[in-house]
Amino acid sequence: MKLHFAPTSPYVRKCMVVADELGLSDRITLLASSAHPVNRDASIIANNPLGKVPTLVTDDGMALYDSRVICEYLNDLGGGQLFPASGAARWRAMTLQSLGDGILDAALLTRYENMVRPEALRWAEWTAGKLDAIHTSLSYLNQHSSVLAGELHIGQITVACALKYLDFRFPELAWNQAYPALAQAIAPVLARDSVSKERALPA
Amino acid sequence: MKLHFAPTSPYVRKCMVVADELGLSDRITLLASSAHPVNRDASIIANNPLGKVPTLVTDDGMALYDSRVICEYLNDLGGGQLFPASGAARWRAMTLQSLGDGILDAALLTRYENMVRPEALRWAEWTAGKLDAIHTSLSYLNQHSSVLAGELHIGQITVACALKYLDFRFPELAWNQAYPALAQAIAPVLARDSVSKERALPA
Repeated sequence: MKLHFAPTSPYVRKCMVVADELGLSDRITLLASSAHPVNRDASIIANNPLGKVPTLVTDDGMALYDSRVICEYLNDLGGGQLFPASGAARWRAMTLQSLGDGILDAALLTRYENMVRPEALRWAEWTAGKLDAIHTSLSYLNQHSSVLAGELHIGQITVACALKYLDFRFPELAWNQAYPALAQAIAPVLARDSVSKERALPA
Repeated sequence: MKLHFAPTSPYVRKCMVVADELGLSDRITLLASSAHPVNRDASIIANNPLGKVPTLVTDDGMALYDSRVICEYLNDLGGGQLFPASGAARWRAMTLQSLGDGILDAALLTRYENMVRPEALRWAEWTAGKLDAIHTSLSYLNQHSSVLAGELHIGQITVACALKYLDFRFPELAWNQAYPALAQAIAPVLARDSVSKERALPA
């Protein structure tokens, strides 16, 4: 398999965590990519017209995206249990994944606003709305930290990747001090080798 | 069930199309909501800390989001076939859903940029990047219209909802003239009652 890869993309991280947990990482060749919201990468577009990472090309030539599809595919390929097959356990894990992805969407839009957009065109209310979405989400997880309990699944992995991204790009939020029950509940996931390790393209 | 609803949201439409196809619409009470990227709706946040529509509250009290999770839940509840259970058919349908959702994400960001953000703070390159993502995606579907063939599934429904949203908010794109093979391939889906009907909150 081949994966359009960027070392700093939290959605790529999600896929690589899943691949590591399932013992599939060695079967994935990483492709250097430069996804960007304005200057779009033609090499990605050849496999995904949205031009986004992660995009996976399977051994039988299917191009799969986005991270949710790739992660579920890898789980299926590896015979994993990261996606509960049915019932309330499935919907809870999938909704937790949506929440983690939603935190990431808000964080990425905040970053584009304040690092990519020309300074004179930045809108403080936009950033405030996105940061508020991040905080209401973290506050929910802090108050309902039991949603993070149980066997490892895609929802916990996604939240962990979102929190690692906040550590990386928004250290001033100090989420782990502001939301201690969340920090305690997610600590075992953050401590997994698959989640904590950094990945880079081969030299 | 209760659904946080907005009549103009294409992601809400997706869920309602699925509900209609499965004969579940009569079991869903629509809740008036005013999701907004800056002025956030507290009534939605009570069930979804991201504050977005659609959010579904099931009869046994689970709050499910986003549209992908809700649609798969409804398909399961109704015993539908809109999500192929396994194999290449599943990954193709799910990736087509991602593509439709990605077109919608780009369209919504374009709309926020040009209708919500103060005029003096708009960035033409941002809009250009989003419109380019829409066009490369429509061009892909036009050149590979066979991906839209076969029994109705969530991928076709999502693309149809994306195209209806472009008709509604971006009529100047005239996508059906620019991409005639796509227009021909998706026409049977667009013609379905579930897709073409407009929905409103009860008076």
